[in-house]
Amino acid sequence: MAQSLRLQPVMTAETETIDSLDFPAPAYAVADDVADLLFREARTIASFTDQPVTDSELAAAYELLRWGPTAMNTTPLRLLVVRSAEARARLAQHVNEGNRDRVLAAPVTLVVASDPAWHRTLPVLAPHRAQMIDFFDGAAEVREQMAYQNAHIQFGYLIVALRAVGLDVGPMAGLDTAAVDAEFLSEQGWRSHLIVNVGHRDEPGTPHARAARLDYADVNLTV
Amino acid sequence: MAQSLRLQPVMTAETETIDSLDFPAPAYAVADDVADLLFREARTIASFTDQPVTDSELAAAYELLRWGPTAMNTTPLRLLVVRSAEARARLAQHVNEGNRDRVLAAPVTLVVASDPAWHRTLPVLAPHRAQMIDFFDGAAEVREQMAYQNAHIQFGYLIVALRAVGLDVGPMAGLDTAAVDAEFLSEQGWRSHLIVNVGHRDEPGTPHARAARLDYADVNLTV
Repeated sequence: MAQSLRLQPVMTAETETIDSLDFPAPAYAVADDVADLLFREARTIASFTDQPVTDSELAAAYELLRWGPTAMNTTPLRLLVVRSAEARARLAQHVNEGNRDRVLAAPVTLVVASDPAWHRTLPVLAPHRAQMIDFFDGAAEVREQMAYQNAHIQFGYLIVALRAVGLDVGPMAGLDTAAVDAEFLSEQGWRSHLIVNVGHRDEPGTPHARAARLDYADVNLTV
Repeated sequence: MAQSLRLQPVMTAETETIDSLDFPAPAYAVADDVADLLFREARTIASFTDQPVTDSELAAAYELLRWGPTAMNTTPLRLLVVRSAEARARLAQHVNEGNRDRVLAAPVTLVVASDPAWHRTLPVLAPHRAQMIDFFDGAAEVREQMAYQNAHIQFGYLIVALRAVGLDVGPMAGLDTAAVDAEFLSEQGWRSHLIVNVGHRDEPGTPHARAARLDYADVNLTV
């Protein structure tokens, strides 16, 4: 497989087709300013103002994202909300050096995790499947895979939901997830995956020109 | 680990805390009807009207979702758009029997996939990292993991974006991904993950009461 992948051409600035769509202008069900806020004008932010992020704002974002669909309504995403200076310093030691200052400086940092024991919530979230608890108790690998897959889908909802609350986000990979789990999550049994710094953008802090994206023509195969 | 997970209490209708938030009403940056359209009132739809879904609508959804953040701007999500009766029948044979009729009946079915050869797009998507192509050529496992993780994040953006275009969605797991890859994607080398039926909801078709969700208090650990 690796060999066949090598046969794919390298995309260059000359071959890419950004902004060359042949489709008529789309009709969105949301206003332009909403599409801009949630997607088109939103940027990954590295530098935030001192304005705090409240628990109420984080809860409001969760109130939206929780309705996004997941397999069997598992909704396994969990949030380690890192606020205190002490917890921030403990987290920073487990992120890549290049990301450390951002974690220390952000108003609040979310460690996005999943709960492999999501099946214990089946009686509430999927009552017609509550009898599957025993099966899932004995199927840790299946549970972990489902937790990973669906929490990442929810990560997408989370980014949009935080922006819908008027917050700016700086998502990051580059953490030692096993070390973060041992440091913070051993009691809960959650597994950490990614980090999102959250706050309000420091206007002069938007650092560089926006990276390009692929066109629809580049990503779809219609049959 | 499996043992410690068993110690977690099973959540029951009595112990759950839905709608018991103690936070003041949130102030969203989007209007109520937008929050409803994208999250709160959106439902997973199993039955659609005959109204077709155009390529323009799908491209419009992609025009939004493509701006959502991914690691290194990899944006590895790819879409197999299944339209023709012939392709639909070929796909249906690889989905779980319980999902087959929905695939055959939907106006259009998207197979959400990822491209493990996303690194070939680095010169366009992350020019400052273009020199990493050789490294990633030799690191197929890392590429596949990053493709899987980031395409699922984009799956979350996709669901929101389709709704922002005014479309209804019925996401589904339960497909034989290896068989789908062999049937449709061997030339591209993409890997299939999930299915999304897309169309316009058949009003009487919304089948059952909405499933519950966890509260913010149930999913966060603040430190």
